[in-house]
Amino acid sequence: MNLGLRYTSLVSSLPATTPFVGPEALERERGDAFRLRLGANESAFGISPKAAQAMRASVEHIAWYGDPEGYDLRRALAKRHGVRLEEVLIGAGIDEMLGNVVRMLVEPGTPVVSSLGAYPTFNYHVAGFGGALEAVPYRNDRIDLEALLDRVRKRQAPLVYLANPDNPMGTWHRADDLHNFIADLPDGTLLVLDEAYIEFAPATAFLPIDVGDPRVIRMRTFSKAHGMAGARIGYAIADAETIAAIGKIRNHFGINRIAQVGALASLMDEEFVADVVREVGLGRDEYHALAHRLSLDSLPSAANFVAIDVGDGDRARALLARLAKHGVFVRMPGVAPLDRCIRITVGTAPMRALFAEILEEVL
Amino acid sequence: MNLGLRYTSLVSSLPATTPFVGPEALERERGDAFRLRLGANESAFGISPKAAQAMRASVEHIAWYGDPEGYDLRRALAKRHGVRLEEVLIGAGIDEMLGNVVRMLVEPGTPVVSSLGAYPTFNYHVAGFGGALEAVPYRNDRIDLEALLDRVRKRQAPLVYLANPDNPMGTWHRADDLHNFIADLPDGTLLVLDEAYIEFAPATAFLPIDVGDPRVIRMRTFSKAHGMAGARIGYAIADAETIAAIGKIRNHFGINRIAQVGALASLMDEEFVADVVREVGLGRDEYHALAHRLSLDSLPSAANFVAIDVGDGDRARALLARLAKHGVFVRMPGVAPLDRCIRITVGTAPMRALFAEILEEVL
Repeated sequence: MNLGLRYTSLVSSLPATTPFVGPEALERERGDAFRLRLGANESAFGISPKAAQAMRASVEHIAWYGDPEGYDLRRALAKRHGVRLEEVLIGAGIDEMLGNVVRMLVEPGTPVVSSLGAYPTFNYHVAGFGGALEAVPYRNDRIDLEALLDRVRKRQAPLVYLANPDNPMGTWHRADDLHNFIADLPDGTLLVLDEAYIEFAPATAFLPIDVGDPRVIRMRTFSKAHGMAGARIGYAIADAETIAAIGKIRNHFGINRIAQVGALASLMDEEFVADVVREVGLGRDEYHALAHRLSLDSLPSAANFVAIDVGDGDRARALLARLAKHGVFVRMPGVAPLDRCIRITVGTAPMRALFAEILEEVL
Repeated sequence: MNLGLRYTSLVSSLPATTPFVGPEALERERGDAFRLRLGANESAFGISPKAAQAMRASVEHIAWYGDPEGYDLRRALAKRHGVRLEEVLIGAGIDEMLGNVVRMLVEPGTPVVSSLGAYPTFNYHVAGFGGALEAVPYRNDRIDLEALLDRVRKRQAPLVYLANPDNPMGTWHRADDLHNFIADLPDGTLLVLDEAYIEFAPATAFLPIDVGDPRVIRMRTFSKAHGMAGARIGYAIADAETIAAIGKIRNHFGINRIAQVGALASLMDEEFVADVVREVGLGRDEYHALAHRLSLDSLPSAANFVAIDVGDGDRARALLARLAKHGVFVRMPGVAPLDRCIRITVGTAPMRALFAEILEEVL
């Protein structure tokens, strides 16, 4: 019996899809837990002990809704970045904020520009609001800034997305190149600059924050360097008017109270994050050396993962399947030519040693 | 400098608004913490010790994203309610799920039926997707089922909302009346039956779950009886096709990992929830007795709060302001004639004693 709900035509037209299948679903499918969880760029280096302590303590107050204004955390973020409170938004991870930004600017048919093979969750939101995704190819495994700009102009797109450092490739652009890219953006086009991995990048990739330019919204997260992916908390910095517009549609009471407390404590623990960044740097070097030893190319990375080039998509997919059989969860880019790579999250030293062993075995 | 982002015409047309101002914002305004936080129907009875323990332990794994399928929790909920896994959705509180259901069915101009003075967050979502809210008056402080049905038919609305027990009045309908209401719903109209407070209601208000009827989606939460409002986790039960349609637009990785773990542990601790329900019943009785002592009417309540009738809206607003000056956070319905009441969350025995003292003083 289906009496037929009256879905919007947009929702009716959407396919059943998810941006990613979670590792737990894969584990249920294979009937066994993974030995190595290196596929979702989750931090292997835990969280700040101060954040952990604050989070455990905050369980006591979980009967209370979190502050919908996220005042304490936003004030600390504003201070850290030298901006005003009303220029900071917090969200349940970058994913939620991407959805809201898309909803703010995209209706059926609106052109939106990203890169072919870039973050699937952004594409998911664009499709979910009926946008026409224009995906320009990478150039030499890097986001092609010129091509993005060209497509934005050609399609008069109100929204363009890029991640720096990039996911899934790990490559990055220098701040001065980004600066020029932004300067050339047409008025009325918003760039979502996804900086989920920025803590792992060299200083030359850090674009100074300029909230005076309404063409940019910066997004950052506590999911990666801060090791809090499960908490779902991130933030955005932009012109106050942009932040206010998102406030007209966002789910105000949506952010977990423990996450807010933990993020604030972690933000204050700069030493912890610096340690994680150092460890990740060592791990990347090890992965590069491993690839070299196995006569494979690896891509330079400014993130907490390394893309290893195994030749072509079929070979990469087969390798992923073999790795999974050996209990290793890793992911790979979804489209050619990026899909000649597998993408391995930096694990701890013992995880890396085990991964190296298994990779050598299955190759 | 405002170069003017190209907002959708819908978002441009929306006012800057939030469904509620949080108590923290009020505290910042008044420069002092509240002595009694009895305004948001948060539980005063904490959380299950088993849930607290599970949540504290899960901080260790916060570097990992929560399972986007919420499998363990959904499986337990399916078992509890005698439905299939694919008939259960979890969300970051009822608020998030309301947003998704509205988005699924509402585009600019779509008529949506609710009650005048009912849950503001539902109205916020309807406005946010351009729906035309049709709010029918309460009848004798209860949701007017006949009037709702009449309006649904007249406007051919694809979506109608009601809470049982109701918020903000606390009144409720018997299951058999709801059953008849649903039976009379036109095909193709979805009822959101918000049961956030159902644990506090008498058995006669429990409508058996019937997922064979695609005209109903039931929503429940861990925010109230389970005392986990700050965790942001709730669930919905409906026809598998409805759940799948929401899966096409929801934020798959949006639910905090600690919340999932805590909800599962709390679900299993039936004794704890039964204790909370018992305590809340005692507290309601006390509030009724208090009102009687002060020669005020109080409304029968099947929720964790009691609405006390103080005569008219002006008097209620003035009373709220005086209570706030004495450090008491309570809320009241937003529109007449409901706004002749103030709504007080059931606190612990000492909280109730203090509230009684302050109320007597300010009256």
